[in-house]
Amino acid sequence: MIGVVAKLNILDGKQEEFEQVAKDLMAKVKANEPGCLTYQLYKSKKDANGYIFMEQYANQEALEAHGKTDYFRAAGAKMGGCLAGAPDVQVYDIVE
Amino acid sequence: MIGVVAKLNILDGKQEEFEQVAKDLMAKVKANEPGCLTYQLYKSKKDANGYIFMEQYANQEALEAHGKTDYFRAAGAKMGGCLAGAPDVQVYDIVE
Repeated sequence: MIGVVAKLNILDGKQEEFEQVAKDLMAKVKANEPGCLTYQLYKSKKDANGYIFMEQYANQEALEAHGKTDYFRAAGAKMGGCLAGAPDVQVYDIVE
Repeated sequence: MIGVVAKLNILDGKQEEFEQVAKDLMAKVKANEPGCLTYQLYKSKKDANGYIFMEQYANQEALEAHGKTDYFRAAGAKMGGCLAGAPDVQVYDIVE
């Protein structure tokens, strides 16, 4: 299993727009990607601009397939205008 | 739902000891905490010292109960000797 934590810093005033795009993306991932086991947006309790996507994939292939979907690319383009900086995407291997 | 990402930097040579303590902790959390929906150790793909616990809780009470268990406190004490620095624990609210 592969874990991903993508940290996003959202511009002031863009949080609601960002959340709407993210919610639509989460629904599409859930509907289309059986190899994506977790794909959940969270917002920081102490930073009004801080968000993460918490993600778990069955394997590397599922992670790569996710990145190639049309809806992921479209959402990424929409989110771009909400970001205060480049996303920090960290990828992990499961320990079990 | 509450999300937690706890980043841990492990001393060189202590990774195996740390992973053993973490695996035992994961088993105890799974067996005893129905309000803890995800509690998974991951290791960084690019940093041999970098680990995270990826965690999801049904609510704030479940998170607080987790921190008060005897086995969490015992594991924390054992992990302490493996850490190269203070853990970075970030807490999030779900967006749904």
